[in-house]
Amino acid sequence: MKKTRFQSTRCPVARSLDHVGEWWNILILRDAFYGLSRFDDFQKSLGIAPNMLTRRLNELVESGLLERRAYSEKPLRHDYLLTECGRDFRPVLLTLMDWGNRHFTPEGTSVFLADKADDSPVELQLIDARSGMPISRERHAVRPGPAADEALHQRLDNGRRRRAERDIHQSSTPVTLP
Amino acid sequence: MKKTRFQSTRCPVARSLDHVGEWWNILILRDAFYGLSRFDDFQKSLGIAPNMLTRRLNELVESGLLERRAYSEKPLRHDYLLTECGRDFRPVLLTLMDWGNRHFTPEGTSVFLADKADDSPVELQLIDARSGMPISRERHAVRPGPAADEALHQRLDNGRRRRAERDIHQSSTPVTLP
Repeated sequence: MKKTRFQSTRCPVARSLDHVGEWWNILILRDAFYGLSRFDDFQKSLGIAPNMLTRRLNELVESGLLERRAYSEKPLRHDYLLTECGRDFRPVLLTLMDWGNRHFTPEGTSVFLADKADDSPVELQLIDARSGMPISRERHAVRPGPAADEALHQRLDNGRRRRAERDIHQSSTPVTLP
Repeated sequence: MKKTRFQSTRCPVARSLDHVGEWWNILILRDAFYGLSRFDDFQKSLGIAPNMLTRRLNELVESGLLERRAYSEKPLRHDYLLTECGRDFRPVLLTLMDWGNRHFTPEGTSVFLADKADDSPVELQLIDARSGMPISRERHAVRPGPAADEALHQRLDNGRRRRAERDIHQSSTPVTLP
């Protein structure tokens, strides 16, 4: 039975994490995006114990991110394919890949997203499709929605207050001249 | 001592996951993006045991995502602030939030990213900043880079082959007329 860690929360970030489940599940989703779909594919790629892999695949099917489709009746064997919900996870994976490439690959790039036209690396950017504007702290901010609960309002209010305190502190700290 | 689960891998996704650490750490980073910075802030927001929070904050400092800055000498108290590396995690959080809002919030939106100009919700989109094109499976694909190891090449090759098999199977499956 899959644990939900953050069940009482209304936070969409926490709920996303709950639906993905364990870290290994992100690597399974990564492999599914690369095109892998069979138990042996995942097992060879990830090198984890078969019973753990079975449990992880079942979790992802239960969470609605993967679906099983039989490709063989005798013996019964399945492809594990991304659902529409699972495919919608792609931006999360791409931003994780980009962040990893930017900060944690001292020996160079091992995998990257490319424009098929010329195989050159994409410069990943998040924009607001309505305005065309790149997402920035100057232009965009997190706001509470109609379903926000008390905990969320407090989190955002406290955050705003704490940030304002730091800004005031920074601007009032005397500059010492040499 | 922080465990690195995926140490032998060159995959930037796996390395990103290793640097973030546990799931709780993503929620700490989320709170840091909301502006929270003090131990009590995080403790109140997340409701986790103080010793666990201490361990998580230390992990994030060790990983280079947060830094400590003292705001009080006696007693010694710190703000935990995002480093440049930590700030670069923002797109991952925003895509997680967006995916969560799209699929896991049946009671409505509790928090969303807004354009400050009119407080209306952003329509989040990933593009290639060089071409301006939205990221799509038709136009973009994952490619191995110069530092790719054998495991990565196999993963991508197997994925491509598996995908081609499924496409052939789909196009050759006879259509049964009623």
